[in-house]
Amino acid sequence: MRQPKIAILGFGNAGQAFARLLIEKKKEIQAIYGQDPIVTAIVTRSRGSLVAEGGLDLEKLLSDLAKTGRFDPADPYQSVAGAIEVAEQADYDILVELTPLEIFSGQPAIDHIKAALNRNKHVITANKGPIAWAYRELRDLALKQDVCFFHETTVMDGTPVFNLVADTLPLCKVTRVEGILNSTTNFVLEELSKGIPMEEVMEEGRKRGFVEADPSLDLLGWDAAAKTAALLNVLMDAGTTPDKIARKGIEDVTKEQIIEAASRGKRIKLLCRGEIKDGIVYGSVAPEEVDVSDLFSTITGASSVVRITTDLMGTLSIVEHDPEILQTGYGVFSDLLRILAKGQ
Amino acid sequence: MRQPKIAILGFGNAGQAFARLLIEKKKEIQAIYGQDPIVTAIVTRSRGSLVAEGGLDLEKLLSDLAKTGRFDPADPYQSVAGAIEVAEQADYDILVELTPLEIFSGQPAIDHIKAALNRNKHVITANKGPIAWAYRELRDLALKQDVCFFHETTVMDGTPVFNLVADTLPLCKVTRVEGILNSTTNFVLEELSKGIPMEEVMEEGRKRGFVEADPSLDLLGWDAAAKTAALLNVLMDAGTTPDKIARKGIEDVTKEQIIEAASRGKRIKLLCRGEIKDGIVYGSVAPEEVDVSDLFSTITGASSVVRITTDLMGTLSIVEHDPEILQTGYGVFSDLLRILAKGQ
Repeated sequence: MRQPKIAILGFGNAGQAFARLLIEKKKEIQAIYGQDPIVTAIVTRSRGSLVAEGGLDLEKLLSDLAKTGRFDPADPYQSVAGAIEVAEQADYDILVELTPLEIFSGQPAIDHIKAALNRNKHVITANKGPIAWAYRELRDLALKQDVCFFHETTVMDGTPVFNLVADTLPLCKVTRVEGILNSTTNFVLEELSKGIPMEEVMEEGRKRGFVEADPSLDLLGWDAAAKTAALLNVLMDAGTTPDKIARKGIEDVTKEQIIEAASRGKRIKLLCRGEIKDGIVYGSVAPEEVDVSDLFSTITGASSVVRITTDLMGTLSIVEHDPEILQTGYGVFSDLLRILAKGQ
Repeated sequence: MRQPKIAILGFGNAGQAFARLLIEKKKEIQAIYGQDPIVTAIVTRSRGSLVAEGGLDLEKLLSDLAKTGRFDPADPYQSVAGAIEVAEQADYDILVELTPLEIFSGQPAIDHIKAALNRNKHVITANKGPIAWAYRELRDLALKQDVCFFHETTVMDGTPVFNLVADTLPLCKVTRVEGILNSTTNFVLEELSKGIPMEEVMEEGRKRGFVEADPSLDLLGWDAAAKTAALLNVLMDAGTTPDKIARKGIEDVTKEQIIEAASRGKRIKLLCRGEIKDGIVYGSVAPEEVDVSDLFSTITGASSVVRITTDLMGTLSIVEHDPEILQTGYGVFSDLLRILAKGQ
C-alpha cells in the first residue's frame, strides 16, 4: 500500500488534533483511499523537532507532549532542522503548514509553501497569512507544478467554504461575499449589549478564551481583514492583501450605541464584505447594524458565517456553530483526504 | 470531442432552466471538461416529445415552447414514445428524471431510474419521490452498475446539501439533521403571525405562488416528510419512507397561538428532524417554537435551511436565500458537471 509522507510545520492544538485524526481514522483511510499516510517530520519552535524517513510514532509523541509539553529529548529522531530546512530538504510528499500567523506579512509561511511547491510537493495550510498575502502567486505555482494547494482551514476551520465553492458550485462565479468571521469582536459586542463595561468584558473574554493577551489585532479589524482578503483572493481572484481592505474596527463602538441600536431592533456586528464593481473587487471590514430578522444577527460567540452570492446559484449562507479544536484538525484532515482521493 | 447524450423526462420550468444553462455554458463546458453534451430525447406529457440520436436543437425547441406552449408539431423529431420507453430504449448516456412528483409512491420515476441504471446509464433526478421511497435500492443498483446516481436538486434546489456532505465532509458521520424545508407552511405561519386571517393568507399565497391549488400536501406536512425521508436516506442511510416519518402538519396551529408565542420571543416553524438512537434513525416533522435568537427564526418565505451535526465537523447550517427557478436548473446542471468531471 502506498504511504504518502507528511511533513508538519508547527504542532499546536490544530496539528495535534490532526495527528489524532490520522491515528483514529487509519483503517478507514486505508480501506477507502487504499493509502496509508505517515508523518515523516514535525517541526516546532519550542517543543523540539522530529524527523524520521520511515515515519514517526504519533501515539508516542502525542503522549510525550501531553505529559511534558514537549517531545522526548531522548527520542532518536530528534532533529535540529528548522522549518525552512525541512520544507526544502526533508523527505515528504505533502507539506502541512501550521506555523503561527504573522498577520502583516504572511511570512515565513509563504516561503515554506513556496519551497514545497518548487519541489513538486502538495501543500495544505491552516495559516491564513499566505492566502491573505500571496494567494495568486502560490496558486499559480501549484498549478504550474501540477500539485495540490489546499487551505480550507484558513477561514471557518473545517467548515467547507473554499471546497464548497470549488467542489459543489462548478462554473458559478462568485459576485459577492459577506460574513462574520471574528469571534473576539463578536463576543465583545454581545457582552457590551448586556450593559457590561468594556474592562469587565475584556477580563471575562480573556478567561473564556475569546480575547487574546493583545486583543488589538482583533478589535482593530486586522484579523477580519486578513480573512476577508483570503476569501476574496480565493473566491473572486481579487489579488488583494489585508492592508488594501477598507478596515474599521470596533474600537469606537460604545455600549450606549449598541443598546440604542438594540432598542430599534438592530444588532451591531463586525461585517466582512467583498463585491465586484467594473471588474475590480472591493473588500471592507466595519461594524454595521443588522436587523434582528437577519440571519447575521443570530451569529454569536465563536460561531461564524459566510454568505456567498453567485451568478447561477443565487445567495447561500454557511454557518459554523460553536467550533472546537477538533474542527480545526478536521479542516486539515479533509484537505489531506482530497489529496489522497486525487492520487487514487 | 466526446458528446455524452442526455435524455430528459419531464420538461417544465426546471428542465427548461437546465436546457438554457446547457446552451449558455456550452463553450465553458467544452473548455473545462473537454466534452460537448447533447440532448437526444425530451419526453413530456402535454407538450409533445422529441427524439433525435444526433442531438436536438435546444434553442429552437425552447423558442417553440415559449411561443406556443408546446414543441413544434411539424418537428421531424416528434416522437410518440413515452417516458419508460425512452428510459428503456433510447440512445443516451445520462438520464435526467424531472417528471412530476407522486408523493405517496415515488412512481413512475423509480421505474424510469431503474430502467436507466439497469442499462448502465448515469442518472440525475430532481424528483424527491425516488429518494424518499427507494433510495437505498437505487443507490445500491448504481454502485453495482458503476454509474452515477445524483439528486442534489431534490432538497433545496441546487444548494449543496448532498454534494456538500459527499464532497466536502469526507469520513464525517452525520448524527443529526434539522431543517426548514417547506415554503408554503413557512409563508402561512409568517402571514398568520401578522394577524391576517387564514382565508386571506391562502388567497394571497395562491397569488404569490406560495400555495398550490391543493395545499393539503404542504399544510399536513407531507412535502416536508418526503424531504425529511430523502435527507435521512442519503445522509444517514436511514432506509426510511415518508409514511414512517412522525408527521404533524400546521393544520391545528392558530393565529392566536402564533401571536402568543411571538409575545414570548418565539416563532412557530414547521421543523424537520432526524437523529440516530441505538443505531436507528428517527425522523419527524412538526410545528415547533424556535427562539428569535435562533438562526431558524430568520428563515422566511421561500428560503430554507438544513442544519447538519457530524462526529468530526460539529454542527453547520446551510441556507438557501430566496431561490428562483434558475437555482433548480443549476442543481441538475451541477450534477451533470460532476458526471462529466468523472468521465474526464
